[in-house]
Amino acid sequence: MRQSHLFTKTRKEAPSDEVSKNAQLLIRAGYIHKEMAGVYTYLPLGLRVLKNIENAIREAMDSTGAQEVLMTALQDPAIWQDDNNRWDDAVVDNWFKTKLSNGTDLGLGFSHEEPLVRILKSHINSYKDLPLVVYQIQVKFRNELRSKSGIMRGREFMMKDLYSFHLDEDDFSQYYEKMAQVYLQLFSDIGLGDRTVRTKASGGSFSKFSDEFQTFSDAGEDTIYLCGKCNIAINDEIIAEQNSCPECGVGKDTLETKKSIEVGNIFPLKAKFTEAGGLKVSGDDSQSQQIMMGCYGIGVTRLMGTVVEVLSDENGIVWPEEIAPFHYHLVRIGDSEGVVKAADELYEKLQAQHDVLYDDRDARPGTKFADSDLIGIPWRIVISEKTMAEGKLELKNRASGEVEMVTEDSLLKP
Amino acid sequence: MRQSHLFTKTRKEAPSDEVSKNAQLLIRAGYIHKEMAGVYTYLPLGLRVLKNIENAIREAMDSTGAQEVLMTALQDPAIWQDDNNRWDDAVVDNWFKTKLSNGTDLGLGFSHEEPLVRILKSHINSYKDLPLVVYQIQVKFRNELRSKSGIMRGREFMMKDLYSFHLDEDDFSQYYEKMAQVYLQLFSDIGLGDRTVRTKASGGSFSKFSDEFQTFSDAGEDTIYLCGKCNIAINDEIIAEQNSCPECGVGKDTLETKKSIEVGNIFPLKAKFTEAGGLKVSGDDSQSQQIMMGCYGIGVTRLMGTVVEVLSDENGIVWPEEIAPFHYHLVRIGDSEGVVKAADELYEKLQAQHDVLYDDRDARPGTKFADSDLIGIPWRIVISEKTMAEGKLELKNRASGEVEMVTEDSLLKP
Repeated sequence: MRQSHLFTKTRKEAPSDEVSKNAQLLIRAGYIHKEMAGVYTYLPLGLRVLKNIENAIREAMDSTGAQEVLMTALQDPAIWQDDNNRWDDAVVDNWFKTKLSNGTDLGLGFSHEEPLVRILKSHINSYKDLPLVVYQIQVKFRNELRSKSGIMRGREFMMKDLYSFHLDEDDFSQYYEKMAQVYLQLFSDIGLGDRTVRTKASGGSFSKFSDEFQTFSDAGEDTIYLCGKCNIAINDEIIAEQNSCPECGVGKDTLETKKSIEVGNIFPLKAKFTEAGGLKVSGDDSQSQQIMMGCYGIGVTRLMGTVVEVLSDENGIVWPEEIAPFHYHLVRIGDSEGVVKAADELYEKLQAQHDVLYDDRDARPGTKFADSDLIGIPWRIVISEKTMAEGKLELKNRASGEVEMVTEDSLLKP
Repeated sequence: MRQSHLFTKTRKEAPSDEVSKNAQLLIRAGYIHKEMAGVYTYLPLGLRVLKNIENAIREAMDSTGAQEVLMTALQDPAIWQDDNNRWDDAVVDNWFKTKLSNGTDLGLGFSHEEPLVRILKSHINSYKDLPLVVYQIQVKFRNELRSKSGIMRGREFMMKDLYSFHLDEDDFSQYYEKMAQVYLQLFSDIGLGDRTVRTKASGGSFSKFSDEFQTFSDAGEDTIYLCGKCNIAINDEIIAEQNSCPECGVGKDTLETKKSIEVGNIFPLKAKFTEAGGLKVSGDDSQSQQIMMGCYGIGVTRLMGTVVEVLSDENGIVWPEEIAPFHYHLVRIGDSEGVVKAADELYEKLQAQHDVLYDDRDARPGTKFADSDLIGIPWRIVISEKTMAEGKLELKNRASGEVEMVTEDSLLKP
């Protein structure tokens, strides 16, 4: 894409009401626009990153045999008024609610256990239909009292929510463990591997434990505890209950504490929602059988914000290659006929093989370099009279800052 | 995809409260699930079709130089309380409204002129920034009083909304005409070409005409008028005003009437929203200059419903190849070791080149054939002891019903 065509512009200052580093940088670099606290529009660069993250997640979920659907934001209260009664604002305190013209109450989905269970009642009835795994990547709404963490805590945000259904606990546990590994691999692929840990969390009223995936960051809203002896991480709910490591019993004071961001969670739901929703199958003995359920969430936009929080530097964003909006940032310095022609030609060749943002603007070198660092594409290529005289190009790695002179051929795939 | 893995099942009857043909067929075939009137979940097959339509639209929009963004459902009243005051329920009567925890009113976006104009104020300021075209494919909310047309009139639905910005009327008109042609080509690519016409519509208070794209269908909520003399179509608003063809003046009674579905519309907005929102650029004379705007909509889910309404037959859905969930429906008849092995092998080979749904279920031939017709994949391949004895496969075209015996090689790309 030619940067002269891109309608967004970088800016020196973020809006004064934006206190989070992730949103400040993303706004300054033109990735997002703040509509209100916790509500952001994704501009062309931001949408490219979002889609890259979505596709990485989709591929990981599909690898477990999951089937993708797209559920709805508008929610019928009737299906939430079961034994769990999550329609009640006293049970779930962050609903956005609205009304049909005729006065009927509706909600905006914050999660989708109840509606999915109802859908499955129309489609599954035999033990042969299980195990079953269904997911979606869909906009969620949560009426957060405060929303000061940029795109890490959205009132409207993109979420991957996956639900698995099993005949017994063994089958459930196997899938649950598989997904834990898929999550760790995914966070690693996205560039957060060395600072993301699987963290023991409370299982609520119906299960001993669940698991969170926490990324170390001082911008995190969570605190986790690391047990050096057991080599595990524990969330603050468990520590508040037990005051010690749940594995070895070492006291709270001995545990290392870290601020962190919850980038994902997986949760055993046992039969809490399947029973309340009346979802059953007949077993091979024709007896009706209970269904074990698990849920597995990743905040897609939160993940994007987390990458910005933890990988950026004083000059701007540093995207990992896997989710960067472009692979190369081709920066033309100078506007002589020779440079323009050479840069245009190089752009066409690179573009045929890679995603390239081409800074073809008439702007000062200093502006172009500062914008390039702020936008944070993994590889910057500079072409100028000087590099042309050498018959080479200047290649800079955004993350390491290393610069080398390379030939055009070495940038093009064999 | 193996059909034994697909969790959705076909059913003989649609829900009794579902009166539209499109939703009846889509529910029976397992493409969608009805949450409530005008609100539908897209199940795996339905999501595949939806994504295919989205991608066809995306490609068409990108070809005009448009840049994709993703705006938000939650809307801040402040930006709608301009001179047009579309926040007022007396001006726009189909808002869904909700509230933040602190009591602040919010709306759910039904269209996005105002928010986009506000975003652009942060990014464009010079005549050099125009023309500019921005679009999104995003979920919209409209609080329809009645919603009885299945996915053709959603309270929550997927829409492509594109907005163009120009320095003058000439530039605007050129783009507007280009988009009209892009729309016609797109509807043609999607299989509606021979029954979709560009239709003169009212331009509201600020423009003489706009254009609708209307697909002939008895299920349509609209009536259009065809003038045989001018070879144009006219919508009912214009006829109600003028009682005659706006081109040649021929009286209403001479015009042919047709029921139709509005699958798209394009609309000159002049400076209505840019002025109200205070979006201006400085011209090359440094004088502030007004911006001409146009908007261009396609109801993505409505388009999907329209295809089902007009192309299905008594046995089920007939997908055009461009948007079908799969290219081939491979149906295995029989469960002898030989047939299973041959069918599995054929599936692997086809799958490497095409999207294939493989009916590997243990079910009666009659059930499989009926399901195949209902689901409506363009090409059905039958493999059985009988076809194997011939060394061939039975290939049936869903649309024409034509059957021929073909070799495996002829199904695989060279």
